[in-house]
Amino acid sequence: MVYPKSLENLINYYKKLPGIGEKNAERLALATLNFKEEDIDNFAASLEDVKNKIHKCKICGHLTEWEICDICKDESRDHNLICVIEDYKSVFSFEKAGNYRGVYHVLNGLISPADNIGPDNINLASLVKRVEQAEKPELILALKSTVEGETTTLYIKKIFENKDVVISRLSYGIPMGAEIDYLDIITLDKALEDRKKISE
Amino acid sequence: MVYPKSLENLINYYKKLPGIGEKNAERLALATLNFKEEDIDNFAASLEDVKNKIHKCKICGHLTEWEICDICKDESRDHNLICVIEDYKSVFSFEKAGNYRGVYHVLNGLISPADNIGPDNINLASLVKRVEQAEKPELILALKSTVEGETTTLYIKKIFENKDVVISRLSYGIPMGAEIDYLDIITLDKALEDRKKISE
Repeated sequence: MVYPKSLENLINYYKKLPGIGEKNAERLALATLNFKEEDIDNFAASLEDVKNKIHKCKICGHLTEWEICDICKDESRDHNLICVIEDYKSVFSFEKAGNYRGVYHVLNGLISPADNIGPDNINLASLVKRVEQAEKPELILALKSTVEGETTTLYIKKIFENKDVVISRLSYGIPMGAEIDYLDIITLDKALEDRKKISE
Repeated sequence: MVYPKSLENLINYYKKLPGIGEKNAERLALATLNFKEEDIDNFAASLEDVKNKIHKCKICGHLTEWEICDICKDESRDHNLICVIEDYKSVFSFEKAGNYRGVYHVLNGLISPADNIGPDNINLASLVKRVEQAEKPELILALKSTVEGETTTLYIKKIFENKDVVISRLSYGIPMGAEIDYLDIITLDKALEDRKKISE
């Protein structure tokens, strides 16, 4: 064994992280040796904290340290406007973008018959309840454009058919700043189809 | 604040690691959320272990969990052949290359007047002692080919001038200015094999 046992252990845990290979894990572990004692203590404590303190918001399913997340608690936000997303990572993306002032509903998955994930396996029942309790509900479906995303979008659309709910989905098109000649043809087709008139 | 506090903390600690930027740290922290409870406990424990258990070998200055490191303890190795290196990372590289059967002496630095690091600031006194106590001492100076490395090599050569010590340095197989611990093992083996005697 080349490394002392505790160092070897640390290397193995760094290796479990996405995109961290053998060489990189070694580098991170050796760098950790140079951390201040206090920093190592806090680093270890923050790992335990993340495990012990973080769970799902009772209302929207997003990650929080409380019973109800800060977004659901925020009275300045529009609670009739609910953005439906696949997982909590999308919440962080929207919040960083910073312009959305509604709330979220985290499905924690998408309908995928191939993986045995049906409508009952994702966080849909509580969405129905939320919509029923809202005054003028509006849903924004922000699910990815894969088969599973489209299936889930259609399923949700069907649930609220004939009910007084405005439903929209994110627009498809060219990412801002992207080179048009590097775009995949499906996106390009979609952008063409959904083209927006700009003349009067 | 976009992230729950404990998650934000973890992101900040990942960001302290070399080569891990904001975006990557977020990715690692979110991936950590999906670790098994047991893995998080062990990950945190391994951080503390590295801090608490690892210190320098009393003989060679290499990292170990014991008073004397496994290499210095190993009686099958040639204790007259001492490879002098800048830091412990080089030991790991040599040990991975796997052909060196002598022992090491970790200087923990190089002479660098510009940084106010003189001969007394690196682990040289104990090297002199080790050489004096050895039967037929042979030193291999495996320091990088920078000004500091060359200065230190010359200084050590001078210390043992007119003493019964064979001194060699690694051959010029080392790319100029490269860090020894990032060398590929074949180059490292070659440099070890072609080491060049510099004492009379």
